[in-house]
Amino acid sequence: MPAARRTRRSPVPVEHDADVRNAFRGKRCLITGGLGFIGSSLALELVNLGAQVTVIDNLLPNHGGNLFNIAPARDRIEVNLGDILSESVMAYLVRDRDYIFHLAGQVSHVLSMSNPFPDIDINVRGTAVLMEAVKHHNPQAYVIHTGTRGQYGAATKLPVNEDAPMAPKGIYELTNLTAERIIQIYSQNFSISSVLLRLTNIYGPRAQMLHSHFGVVNWFVRQILDGRPIQLFGDGSILRDFVYVDDAVEACLVAAVRSEGRGEVYNVGNDKPTSFRQLAETMIRAAKRGEYVFTEFTPERKAQEPGNFYSDITKARTRLRWEPKTELHDGLVRTLDYYRQHREHYWTVETRSAGGRAT
Amino acid sequence: MPAARRTRRSPVPVEHDADVRNAFRGKRCLITGGLGFIGSSLALELVNLGAQVTVIDNLLPNHGGNLFNIAPARDRIEVNLGDILSESVMAYLVRDRDYIFHLAGQVSHVLSMSNPFPDIDINVRGTAVLMEAVKHHNPQAYVIHTGTRGQYGAATKLPVNEDAPMAPKGIYELTNLTAERIIQIYSQNFSISSVLLRLTNIYGPRAQMLHSHFGVVNWFVRQILDGRPIQLFGDGSILRDFVYVDDAVEACLVAAVRSEGRGEVYNVGNDKPTSFRQLAETMIRAAKRGEYVFTEFTPERKAQEPGNFYSDITKARTRLRWEPKTELHDGLVRTLDYYRQHREHYWTVETRSAGGRAT
Repeated sequence: MPAARRTRRSPVPVEHDADVRNAFRGKRCLITGGLGFIGSSLALELVNLGAQVTVIDNLLPNHGGNLFNIAPARDRIEVNLGDILSESVMAYLVRDRDYIFHLAGQVSHVLSMSNPFPDIDINVRGTAVLMEAVKHHNPQAYVIHTGTRGQYGAATKLPVNEDAPMAPKGIYELTNLTAERIIQIYSQNFSISSVLLRLTNIYGPRAQMLHSHFGVVNWFVRQILDGRPIQLFGDGSILRDFVYVDDAVEACLVAAVRSEGRGEVYNVGNDKPTSFRQLAETMIRAAKRGEYVFTEFTPERKAQEPGNFYSDITKARTRLRWEPKTELHDGLVRTLDYYRQHREHYWTVETRSAGGRAT
Repeated sequence: MPAARRTRRSPVPVEHDADVRNAFRGKRCLITGGLGFIGSSLALELVNLGAQVTVIDNLLPNHGGNLFNIAPARDRIEVNLGDILSESVMAYLVRDRDYIFHLAGQVSHVLSMSNPFPDIDINVRGTAVLMEAVKHHNPQAYVIHTGTRGQYGAATKLPVNEDAPMAPKGIYELTNLTAERIIQIYSQNFSISSVLLRLTNIYGPRAQMLHSHFGVVNWFVRQILDGRPIQLFGDGSILRDFVYVDDAVEACLVAAVRSEGRGEVYNVGNDKPTSFRQLAETMIRAAKRGEYVFTEFTPERKAQEPGNFYSDITKARTRLRWEPKTELHDGLVRTLDYYRQHREHYWTVETRSAGGRAT
């Protein structure tokens, strides 16, 4: 089985320094959106580190929540299907937590531009429900929030650092920014510790593979595995920074352990940018198959396309001692292997393993 | 009657240039929050200019909505009591409007810090409901939004221009910023014309006089008229810019007429700053009575106090040809006169004239 051999040859997962390795043992952690792509990856790693992990997730269709994501540790993760908009549920769930990782969100730019209300509910009101719960029931908790590089909009200067102007291009990006600022305001006014991460394009195992509304790298992976050509918009020269999910999880962990924690903001990106064409070529090498074609931007894509974008991660590198460690090729090898093995849980809407997934 | 004599001696109201004077004749205008302080003042002026005016207002307690505000033109203003959160109501009301002045909002910093949900509902969701209605039912409308200088937070440089960083200190200020950006995003993506005003401290007739949660100048007016000393926090030396309501109304009108209108932002402030002590002294001269005392900041006041703040209005002055014309002393004379005459409609919760005000 070539896939299995490739897995053994692939680099070891991101290794933690001793302080991170020991920080979470016995710690009580809550992860909102914990059945989603990054949330579930974080849940598995926290369990590995000896934490007690509860996830809350509403399995919103097309958002990536999937019980199979946590299958390797299903018996060690407490799963609470529910909505972060429920004030009484959140008032209960936040109690006695050491760390609250807030990853629940509406994450589709496209959807947000046809209907702004899910974003306003989940990203804005949901974050306020969480912070009200923390304020009243557990102000000692440490809140880690993951926003998006989309909060910046188009780059006015490259690489983009945390002080760049904020000009979100859509309701999804705007509501992420509003969520971040709600947490900052609660931190500043009610002495709640928090750290705010702005994530670039994350890829890897456990992301949804049903549609192309978000997660462009994973969508390319699906094209390769389906034997279809990767479609590159324009000439494929636009630069972006890509981060493997294990590195994003590591950023969440080190931010929880090493940040001073009063609303500090950190880019979680990659200052070695890659063009979409390089991405496709690297993926084809990693998969040992596949091809790419060029296609015109649709007007919708063009409007949302912010042009070249990559993050300045100097602040994370110096203050959190974090940087991405996984080379694009290696991350893609692992991603391809994962979906080759588990295609049936991601290629079509999964109902059985999710034990009653909403439709 | 000294009050009446003083009214006759006071300067004429802000006069419009010919383009503004003629722009609104026969035009169909909708004003959200149109029974409130600035909304009702705008409604009366638009009627004077020959516009057809509909106001929507939910008479939210303590927010300043008051049917007496539009008494001088009650028979020429269509009043629609209702909530901007109603999608079907807004879908109907936005149709065939030439101008939509969006002034509805939760406006209390203090309230927003004890309960963030009214702000998220009214300021964020309400603005999205409005813009969805405009997008689907009247994308030709021109939308004029009034935000707050509080969106900037503390000044990093004085005077504060429109490019200054945004660091709102509370949920009220944050949700105003989010509302502004929702409108910008709809302008940019769906070709809806809009202009975004950031208002400084506005004072004058028709503001609520029941509490001190917002509207500091008017609150001082009430102290004077009640024969109580004005309380100045600290040493009263903090600088602020104050604008008389007629000038703010003029800014709304000229912005509708003269702005290019694709999400442009303008400060509506006063680059001649005044200390709170000067404000009190000017008011005492205008009233020919009164006194002030110094008092310690409460911790709550201290936390929300952004320090010296006044607006750079170069952009409004050059592009809109707007600047405040009413001297502080003259504006205060008119404000004092108004409340001397109409105290009974503002000093206690009014139920009769509001025709069923919610409690």
